[in-house]
Amino acid sequence: MKNHPLRIIPLGGLGEVGANMMVYEYDNQLLVVDTGLMFPENDMLGIDYIIPDISYLTARRDKVKGIIITHGHEDHTGAIRHVLEEISAPIYSTPLTQGMLEVKLARSGMAQRAHLETIRAGDNRKIGPFSVDFFHVCHSIPDAVGLGIDSPAGLIVHTGDYKFDHTPVDNWPTDYAKLAEFQRRGVLALLADSTNSERAGWTPSERVIDSAFDKVFREAKGRIIIASFASLISRMQQVAEVAQRYGRKMAFAGTSMVDNEKIARKLNYLDIPENTIISLDEALNRKDRDVVIMCTGSQGEPTSILGKLSTGSHRIFDIKVGDTVVLSSHPIPGNEENVYRTINRLFERGANVIYESIAPVHVSGHASQEEMKLMMHLTQPKYFVPIHGELRQLKRHAALAAEVGIPQENIAVVLNGQPVEFFEGKMKLGKIVPTSYVFVDGSGVGNVGPDVMHEREELSQEGIMIVNLGVDKFTGKLSRPPEITSRGFIATNGSTNLVDGLRKRISETAVRSNGSLQKDVEQVVGNYLYSETHRRPIIIVNTFKA
Amino acid sequence: MKNHPLRIIPLGGLGEVGANMMVYEYDNQLLVVDTGLMFPENDMLGIDYIIPDISYLTARRDKVKGIIITHGHEDHTGAIRHVLEEISAPIYSTPLTQGMLEVKLARSGMAQRAHLETIRAGDNRKIGPFSVDFFHVCHSIPDAVGLGIDSPAGLIVHTGDYKFDHTPVDNWPTDYAKLAEFQRRGVLALLADSTNSERAGWTPSERVIDSAFDKVFREAKGRIIIASFASLISRMQQVAEVAQRYGRKMAFAGTSMVDNEKIARKLNYLDIPENTIISLDEALNRKDRDVVIMCTGSQGEPTSILGKLSTGSHRIFDIKVGDTVVLSSHPIPGNEENVYRTINRLFERGANVIYESIAPVHVSGHASQEEMKLMMHLTQPKYFVPIHGELRQLKRHAALAAEVGIPQENIAVVLNGQPVEFFEGKMKLGKIVPTSYVFVDGSGVGNVGPDVMHEREELSQEGIMIVNLGVDKFTGKLSRPPEITSRGFIATNGSTNLVDGLRKRISETAVRSNGSLQKDVEQVVGNYLYSETHRRPIIIVNTFKA
Repeated sequence: MKNHPLRIIPLGGLGEVGANMMVYEYDNQLLVVDTGLMFPENDMLGIDYIIPDISYLTARRDKVKGIIITHGHEDHTGAIRHVLEEISAPIYSTPLTQGMLEVKLARSGMAQRAHLETIRAGDNRKIGPFSVDFFHVCHSIPDAVGLGIDSPAGLIVHTGDYKFDHTPVDNWPTDYAKLAEFQRRGVLALLADSTNSERAGWTPSERVIDSAFDKVFREAKGRIIIASFASLISRMQQVAEVAQRYGRKMAFAGTSMVDNEKIARKLNYLDIPENTIISLDEALNRKDRDVVIMCTGSQGEPTSILGKLSTGSHRIFDIKVGDTVVLSSHPIPGNEENVYRTINRLFERGANVIYESIAPVHVSGHASQEEMKLMMHLTQPKYFVPIHGELRQLKRHAALAAEVGIPQENIAVVLNGQPVEFFEGKMKLGKIVPTSYVFVDGSGVGNVGPDVMHEREELSQEGIMIVNLGVDKFTGKLSRPPEITSRGFIATNGSTNLVDGLRKRISETAVRSNGSLQKDVEQVVGNYLYSETHRRPIIIVNTFKA
Repeated sequence: MKNHPLRIIPLGGLGEVGANMMVYEYDNQLLVVDTGLMFPENDMLGIDYIIPDISYLTARRDKVKGIIITHGHEDHTGAIRHVLEEISAPIYSTPLTQGMLEVKLARSGMAQRAHLETIRAGDNRKIGPFSVDFFHVCHSIPDAVGLGIDSPAGLIVHTGDYKFDHTPVDNWPTDYAKLAEFQRRGVLALLADSTNSERAGWTPSERVIDSAFDKVFREAKGRIIIASFASLISRMQQVAEVAQRYGRKMAFAGTSMVDNEKIARKLNYLDIPENTIISLDEALNRKDRDVVIMCTGSQGEPTSILGKLSTGSHRIFDIKVGDTVVLSSHPIPGNEENVYRTINRLFERGANVIYESIAPVHVSGHASQEEMKLMMHLTQPKYFVPIHGELRQLKRHAALAAEVGIPQENIAVVLNGQPVEFFEGKMKLGKIVPTSYVFVDGSGVGNVGPDVMHEREELSQEGIMIVNLGVDKFTGKLSRPPEITSRGFIATNGSTNLVDGLRKRISETAVRSNGSLQKDVEQVVGNYLYSETHRRPIIIVNTFKA
């Protein structure tokens, strides 16, 4: 059999597009690992979410042998429907991940189209030229897996998101034995999660939260409301345990929270006695000190349950004095303002708010520096490629690898679109593949590009001023006073003088203008508004003959 | 002499408006402490900055006896020109603060109008009915003061921004003796900075940065570029010292950085030998390993020097491989995305980037919890009012006061506009004074209100669609095809079908419509766009008779 190079092509997850997607390619056969989305940054105006450009895949759609989803988080699953619109290949995932994918696919009417293959940690599957070992990893969602991807070019360990939690809530630690086995077989390259590469030490175990929760329950006199990520199943388990200890019933609020709780219970990832769980309605009718409500909104999202509670705009319940609200989360960069605003508003409504800086009510799901080094020592790879992170995090992870003793020239820090190739035991960088952001806005995929984004930016900063001119079709002069409309510029009641001044200047311009009335008026309006207000709104001048 | 109540009225700095401004009022005479501005949050679109509503002052302009500025940071000085436009009263500040105010006032053409009174830490001044002791505090700018404000109603200690640094760079620690003296005189109330109330322990001394800087200079082979706050004079001093140790010359880049360096050197707050400082031009012409450049942009501001370097858009120099860039700062909440993006881009351009999570190159200028408790013990106030902070920080500071032993009923957590009154040794809350944000945008103050902000929000999310209809003045029917313009909606080249469909529906509507053509078309356009794109741009329909 002829040898081929193994190409690993990051389409997402490295550098700016945090939506994780990686392609493994051998002998013209492709394996996709993860199909993530990314939520927009604050200056990506009006965008719902961002997905990787998958044109590399669509150009090779018949060669895609399989898609592996390592776990059920949006940054690993969220683009699945966009991928399935183009690619037809079996999707390999663990039962919980599959349950979450099924909900997502059903919602976009794609359930029929998907061929879902259940795998379990410990399984091995042949997918095209690849022999894939799935191994269990701890993360902030149960049933996550890492991958040992073997091909004639060598064995690659792809960690997925992971941490080494010795006392996870589901008592299922990361599979050290499998990692050691890979090491015995010889690891050509380790591709490892870089998210927390700037954090020293070891990420605390999920278990450390228990005592903080215990204190909250011991001291709370009224209702307890706990906001967390909807997918953080282990946090539900922890709340359920302390709720039982203190004789409180537990309710869930928020569609995604309820969905995930149902799937997780059905598939036995949550162990909560039936009589501990009540409906939200029932919770609101019980005595305050007998209930705990888990809800969405720990990132301060204005439309989430907690967001609505903080502004008093929830349809069926309100914060009241005596409530204890726990934000069991850490703000994702970019969300800080929303999170802090939500906390301030909850305080203002009389709640006692407990959050990360007050008590250890959250831990990260990602490995910190000492765990990263352990991963390197366990697998002893020849080559190292940091994945899942911004460039600063990849660089830091690479520096850790060098500290551990991996030679600098065997470490590749690459960004999306930069293939890493392995042939006869040697690594080199391949020719760059075009990648980019694809913005998804409403039902449109990719029809909001840089130009539209730039217009939105301008509109958001200064607003728009629209001038309609009626022009006499014989004389070319104004046939009526200019009509002036604005949006997002300044309050019109405060600016009568401004509008009057504008009318006057437009009329004057129309008298002297010969030919390019529209352009002349545009310029005069722009100059006048800037001199009066030091602002430059978008200006649109329409002329019509009448 | 008849006794009067002392009223302390927060116009800014407590809760949402982080622009610090406090009014002390006794016997109908007012003393203003600080006149700050606040920079907009990410969703305050197009706003330059925010100032407190000062209508309480303008209604009493003849009663204002003085304005004290505790130090030269924008959140304490930035609204001075807006205040001086309404109020004419002497401004008391230390020499450095005054130097910075002079630059600011000269720039807005108000230098003539201001009556600046120089005070020094240790001074006492009678200002109306108040006897004010100015005492030195350490902070992230030199020459900061706290205040002992005495009146017949009692002695108030107003800390301003402070920390207890035992080894500050200028060797001038916070004035413990004066605080102890206040305690002996009897402190009615302590008003203390709450910024870091969520941080355990003691804020590290500025001196801890020295060894991190030393390592940077020891290891850097090429240029060193250090970004920091322009007002962080002590950081300039520290860089200068290590630069001399390693034989590098020092240059400054960025208007505000250069301004502050000049003022600070002129007034002897910076002790740098003349021959250590060179111009930026000269620095760029010297050998890389012989220079260090200090510049603005440590918050990732796109228009700052560092922001421009990160995008390769600076007018006179570029990042090159081998540069070491230090961000000597901590991201202010809301700036994280910009800061991390700047770091990533600098890495991408080949710089070695050193920032907070890599080495201790920054410390806070505000007291942490143990320092806050020390302040309470030193002054032993009867009453406690946390100032300078969001509600969550004020609450936390109040909880610390309770831990230290101040009775709960003697602690007042209040927000802007809530007067605190002291009469015959008792504290009570007064009648709320109207306060709010005033947005400053371009040259306009206050003419951008909630309605305009809401329009900008809508424009930024979905854009605008403008439809012009020519209507026959006799038949009321369309006299020509509709003209359709959009901004910030979707790329028009990708949406020919959409525009065609829209024209068709508008024409159909015009045929059936009788009377309210404009309204009918608005509705049809809105429904059609939503059904096709799931988006709701702002829609403006103009009709003109022709």
